[in-house]
Amino acid sequence: MKFGVVIFPSKKLQDEVNSYRKRYDPHYSLIPPHLTLKSAFEATEEDVKNFADKLRKVAGKTGPFSLKTTKVSSFKPVNNVIYFKVEPSNELNTLHSEINNELDVEKNEYAFVPHITIGQKLSNDEHSDIYGSLRMTNINHEETIDRFHLLYQLENGTWTVYETFRLGKE
Amino acid sequence: MKFGVVIFPSKKLQDEVNSYRKRYDPHYSLIPPHLTLKSAFEATEEDVKNFADKLRKVAGKTGPFSLKTTKVSSFKPVNNVIYFKVEPSNELNTLHSEINNELDVEKNEYAFVPHITIGQKLSNDEHSDIYGSLRMTNINHEETIDRFHLLYQLENGTWTVYETFRLGKE
Repeated sequence: MKFGVVIFPSKKLQDEVNSYRKRYDPHYSLIPPHLTLKSAFEATEEDVKNFADKLRKVAGKTGPFSLKTTKVSSFKPVNNVIYFKVEPSNELNTLHSEINNELDVEKNEYAFVPHITIGQKLSNDEHSDIYGSLRMTNINHEETIDRFHLLYQLENGTWTVYETFRLGKE
Repeated sequence: MKFGVVIFPSKKLQDEVNSYRKRYDPHYSLIPPHLTLKSAFEATEEDVKNFADKLRKVAGKTGPFSLKTTKVSSFKPVNNVIYFKVEPSNELNTLHSEINNELDVEKNEYAFVPHITIGQKLSNDEHSDIYGSLRMTNINHEETIDRFHLLYQLENGTWTVYETFRLGKE
């Protein structure tokens, strides 16, 4: 089965992101708006307790931190994904690399660019249209992140939370 | 905003429940299959940390327990909900009442009948057809429950997990 590790931002930001995802993201109904810390990877159901133990340790040694998003950006030409760019921070980078070191499975092939997807699987024309109209949007949102989540995927493609990890707690 | 407290059963049981929900439950895409411990209630975003503190304490003094489901049942004539009946147990009853005592908001009007919904908002005819064909189904599933979740609802009706509480841990 598939697992992943994400941050769910505040309800306010999720609602705003969903107003775009509703139209531009075919994964809209599969998972709430999120920032991916470790993208989907295969493991067995028996592994999950071990993963959770490791993630609990990572969470314990990282404090809450500020998440700031200021603009819309795109991964094109790598792929036609439009997203809220999240400003890099030491805490976020550390959290990302600790999680990926601890869960030593299916290493990411991409560098970590923290983001919250608002559109994906767009044709080139759709991408041009949508990105053209959104690229100048001012976002200007800041909030405190104090937790992240380990998820698993059901057969229908939706994701269920297995466990929450609170930053600075063990 | 709205909050709720649920148990997500194992992936295996969720997948089975979804095979019915896909056809019979309009909430299929809003929340994964679940057993409700406290149904949706209104509270402010500021309340959530207080709720989580209380639920963490409840979880700490309850151990993991066995969840057993053996048959399909229905709430008709109260409402046209078809569900996997979950056998009552002392642990589940205690967990339910402790959660509802701690979160002293919008008390439930119904007695606690532990269940996992597979169909709802059915017309009388649909209900008769579906329940007629499912009522003799043998389920016979047993698993260990070692956690529950506090959720909140987004503006589009979907639910996001705020926090997981592990039974017997604090």
